Amino acid sequence: MSSHSAAARYDILGIGNAIVDVVARADDAFLSRHDMRKGGMALIDAEAAEALYAAMPPGIETSGGSAANTCAVAAGLGARVAYLGKVADDQLGGVFRHDIVSGGVHFPSAPLRGAAPTARCLILVTPDAQRTMNTFLGACVSFSEADVDAALVADSAITYLEGYLFDPPAAQAAFRRAAAVAHAAGRQVALSLSDAFCVDRHRAAFRDLVAGHVDILFANETEICSLYEANDFEVAAEAARRDVALAALTRSEDGSVILRGAETLRIAAAPADVVDTTGAGDAYAAGFLTALTKGRKLDVCGRMGSAAAALVIGDYGARPRGDLPALAGAVMG
Amino acid sequence: MSSHSAAARYDILGIGNAIVDVVARADDAFLSRHDMRKGGMALIDAEAAEALYAAMPPGIETSGGSAANTCAVAAGLGARVAYLGKVADDQLGGVFRHDIVSGGVHFPSAPLRGAAPTARCLILVTPDAQRTMNTFLGACVSFSEADVDAALVADSAITYLEGYLFDPPAAQAAFRRAAAVAHAAGRQVALSLSDAFCVDRHRAAFRDLVAGHVDILFANETEICSLYEANDFEVAAEAARRDVALAALTRSEDGSVILRGAETLRIAAAPADVVDTTGAGDAYAAGFLTALTKGRKLDVCGRMGSAAAALVIGDYGARPRGDLPALAGAVMG
Repeated sequence: MSSHSAAARYDILGIGNAIVDVVARADDAFLSRHDMRKGGMALIDAEAAEALYAAMPPGIETSGGSAANTCAVAAGLGARVAYLGKVADDQLGGVFRHDIVSGGVHFPSAPLRGAAPTARCLILVTPDAQRTMNTFLGACVSFSEADVDAALVADSAITYLEGYLFDPPAAQAAFRRAAAVAHAAGRQVALSLSDAFCVDRHRAAFRDLVAGHVDILFANETEICSLYEANDFEVAAEAARRDVALAALTRSEDGSVILRGAETLRIAAAPADVVDTTGAGDAYAAGFLTALTKGRKLDVCGRMGSAAAALVIGDYGARPRGDLPALAGAVMG
Repeated sequence: MSSHSAAARYDILGIGNAIVDVVARADDAFLSRHDMRKGGMALIDAEAAEALYAAMPPGIETSGGSAANTCAVAAGLGARVAYLGKVADDQLGGVFRHDIVSGGVHFPSAPLRGAAPTARCLILVTPDAQRTMNTFLGACVSFSEADVDAALVADSAITYLEGYLFDPPAAQAAFRRAAAVAHAAGRQVALSLSDAFCVDRHRAAFRDLVAGHVDILFANETEICSLYEANDFEVAAEAARRDVALAALTRSEDGSVILRGAETLRIAAAPADVVDTTGAGDAYAAGFLTALTKGRKLDVCGRMGSAAAALVIGDYGARPRGDLPALAGAVMG
C-alpha cells in the first residue's frame, strides 16, 4: 500500500455475483442422475434451473455469493465493509439486500429493474458435507464497468474480487477497472480463485491478472494447481509466491499455507463439526482480511481465517449463525 | 368415521395459511424494543412487516405455515397427504410450492395473481430457543370457501385445520365448509388451536366449532386453558374430554396428555437438543395423525408425535432436515 494514500473509509470492498442460495440435502445418486461434478460449481440457464429446482428436495434459502459471504462474515468480525453486486428488484433481491445490509455491510448497488431475476445457486449438500453448486446468474449478467463505484474503490483499503466474476462476460471488464482504480489510489487488490473449473474456463486471463494486478491471492489446493497446471501443491505454491505479494492457500482439514516473499507459514485447521462446507473458503478470506486490515501478524490472520471457516461449516448455508464478535475477540484479542 | 365411507385417497388434508418463514436470531431486548409478546404470534400489515424486516438481523427463509408444516412432516413420515392454501404467483410462492410438493404433498391450490404477495412470517428466535412470530398474511387473506375443493375433502380420511385460519376473515367460512363436507362424507375433522392469543381473539367461535364440529383436537397447555378460560390444565383437559372424541394436549418438556372417552394417556417428551421450538406443535400433530391413520394405538400416536417434535426443535425452522422415514420406522415399526 502506498504511504501516500489517505486513511480508507472501508477495510474491505467486495465485488461479486449477488446470489441467493437454495440449500437442500441430496445423496450421491442424485448428483449422478443430474450429471453434477461433486464439489464444483456449474453455470445453468433459467430453464435448467427450473428443471433442477423441481427435482430437488425441500430446501432453505439464504443469501450467498462468494464475495458477499466474505463481506458478511468480515463485517460480523468487526471489519468496515462495503459490497458491489447486482440483484433484481424482486423478492429474492430484497432478501439479499436485507441480509447484507442488516449484517452491517454498505451496499449501494442499484437493483436491476424489469429484466432478469436475482441470481440463484441451487446447492446440494451430500452426507459427506460436500456442497455441489448450480448457478443461474440472472441479474448478475448485467453487472458491468458502469457498476464499479470508483470513489468507493478508492476509499477501500482492499478491493476483494471473486474469481466467479470471470463468468458473466461484462464483469471481467468491471474487474479490471476496479483493480486499476484501486492501484491508482494506492490501495490493494485481493482475488479469490473461487473454483477450479472456473479457473479452467478462464486460465489465461486469470494468469495475466494474478501476475499483473493482484496483491493478495486466496485459493484452495485444486484451484492453485489448476491455475498453474501443476500436479503438485508445493510447485503451484512456489509459482504463486513469485506472482503475488501475499498468498493464502487453503487445504481443507490440513489447514492453510501463507506465503509472503521468502516467508512461509503453515496454519492448522480449527476443529469443526462438519455439516456443510458451503462458504468455508469465503469465511477463511473474511477472517484473514479482517485480521490483516487490523494490522495483525500473518499467523493471527491465518488463525482468524481458520476459525471463521470452522464456524461456517458447522451449519447449513454459507453465512454463520454463530457469535462472530466473540470469535474475533477470542482469536485477535 | 362412518363405516359406510369408501377408502380415502389421502390420510390427511391440511388447510391453512400458506406462509414462508424468515427466521433470524435476536435477544430479548430486541423483542422488547419492538413490543413483541415472546412466544406468541402477532398479525402485522405490509408496512409493519417492511419496518420489522429492515430492523431484523440476517435470516434464513424456509417454507412454513402451521398446517403446511404438519403436512410436510406427515408426508415425510409416510402418510398420504394433500394441502390447500393460498400463495401468490411470486418468488416466495414458488419456494412454498416447491418445498411442499417436493416433500410429497399434493397441492392443487391455484396461485393468486396480481394481488397481495405470498405471506411471510418474521420469526425471532431467542437464546432460550423460544420463537416469536410476526405474520404478514398477504395472499392468505384471499383464501375463501371457493378454495375448498369438496372432492378432495371427501377423499381425505382426516381434514386438518389450523386455528390461525380464524384470522383471515374469509377463511372462517372456508373452515366451516370444509368441516361440513368432511362430515357429510363420513370423514373426520381435526383442529389445532395454534396460538393462545388467536384463541383469545376468536374464543366464542372456537368454542362452538370444537363442541359441534371437531373430532380430534390439538392444543398446548396455554391454548387449551385460553379456550376454556381455565387457570388449571387439568380443568381445561376435562372440558376438552367432554367436547371432542379425541384430544392430544402438549406440554412442552412435560410431554403430552391424550384423552379419548374415559381413557387418559400420558406420553413423555422425546429427548432433544433444543435450538428453535418453531414448528414443534405442528410436527407433533404430524406424527400423531400419521400413526393414527395407519391404525396404530394411541400410545404409539403420542410417541410418534413426541419424536417428530424432538426432531424439528433440534434445528432452525419448522420443517426438520433429519431422516423422517427412519424416525417413522423406529417408532411405528
